Amino acid sequence: MKAVVLLSGGLDSSTVLYQAQTDGCECYALSFDYQQRHRRELEAAKTIALSAQVQQHQVIQFDLGLWGGSALTDPGWEVPRDRAPSEMADNIPITYVPARNTIFLSFALAYAEALEAQRVYLGANALDYSGYPDCRPDYIDAMQQVFQLGTKQGREGNPIQIITPLLDLKKTEIIELGNQLKVPWEKTWSCYQGGDKACGVCDACQLRLNAFQALGLTDPLSYYQEESNE
Amino acid sequence: MKAVVLLSGGLDSSTVLYQAQTDGCECYALSFDYQQRHRRELEAAKTIALSAQVQQHQVIQFDLGLWGGSALTDPGWEVPRDRAPSEMADNIPITYVPARNTIFLSFALAYAEALEAQRVYLGANALDYSGYPDCRPDYIDAMQQVFQLGTKQGREGNPIQIITPLLDLKKTEIIELGNQLKVPWEKTWSCYQGGDKACGVCDACQLRLNAFQALGLTDPLSYYQEESNE
Repeated sequence: MKAVVLLSGGLDSSTVLYQAQTDGCECYALSFDYQQRHRRELEAAKTIALSAQVQQHQVIQFDLGLWGGSALTDPGWEVPRDRAPSEMADNIPITYVPARNTIFLSFALAYAEALEAQRVYLGANALDYSGYPDCRPDYIDAMQQVFQLGTKQGREGNPIQIITPLLDLKKTEIIELGNQLKVPWEKTWSCYQGGDKACGVCDACQLRLNAFQALGLTDPLSYYQEESNE
Repeated sequence: MKAVVLLSGGLDSSTVLYQAQTDGCECYALSFDYQQRHRRELEAAKTIALSAQVQQHQVIQFDLGLWGGSALTDPGWEVPRDRAPSEMADNIPITYVPARNTIFLSFALAYAEALEAQRVYLGANALDYSGYPDCRPDYIDAMQQVFQLGTKQGREGNPIQIITPLLDLKKTEIIELGNQLKVPWEKTWSCYQGGDKACGVCDACQLRLNAFQALGLTDPLSYYQEESNE
């Protein structure tokens, strides 16, 4: 069974790639160079795709910085730091990139249809990213409907399925799953900043560090502010 | 009211742009350079955007040729010629580009959300392009649901609306509408081939020429095979 796996290079999508392989899929990884400020992420995606020995890894380039609208694509906006997880969940954060998952899933759909694949894997998570409208279950259902009606394959009764193994998991549960799957955490990248090491203080670093800590584990990634990991 | 208008440079999307302006919208045109074989289309989009004096015209570049799957993106596939309209409607043609409208609408959604626009205009037509899964009303409804659930604006109760003024019109009715709106037909481009003049024999040329002919009008565009227009 062929599957397209959306691979950002982060902890979540890397776990999903290893899960897809464990599910018995022949994996085709898909990443995006959208002029994101955290370009290290793309390098991580390439490394993870190699580690997992995927069939193919495509990187689609386009420029979401053309119209700004997010702290991740507009250098004029500052990435929030040192926020508690409760603050992150409150409302839609400025790191939300308009329609990003919709764009990513659309390309995955195109790639999957060209490959005649059966599945698209997405590392969306509705708990940690509850503030992101395009990470919630009702949104995923709406995209599944688009997958069904918007393609030749779907119209012919063989729709490509969106698989979201992490949708209802806590970050600690994702790490436990990834440990079982032997995901090489040191090769993943979550930080929203573009540094050589992870910053340790942006939302993505905080979520990750807090989860490793809650499990009594050490994140093998290097951080600038190691004190956050104590 | 701000609107993003998906503008390919063809007869349909050009008519839609002029309709959006007549509807009172401030228009932001969006086109795509996806390595399509008929690149003249993009030049037409730029010319039409200028003629209509849109607020802004963005061209997003990406490469759908990476995975082929269509006669419009894969130079190894031949564009069909000399087909009657009845043949075109029969089944999904090889000029169908996997998930193209889904990708286009996703970018339009991102652009619209960054602009805080209220509408996205799309020139989809369910009659002439009944073979394309992503031109049918149920597909448009599914994308509308994605617009609602996949964005901050939609979640806050102010969803961006997809407007498809041509959905149920015949090509002759589209031309009549465009004539009322004074669309400069000579600046539009429909042909699937990449020539200096339109070929006159691909599906897109045939549909266009037949419709002008049925109305007793002459298409002001130059064709290689003028005899097709007699």
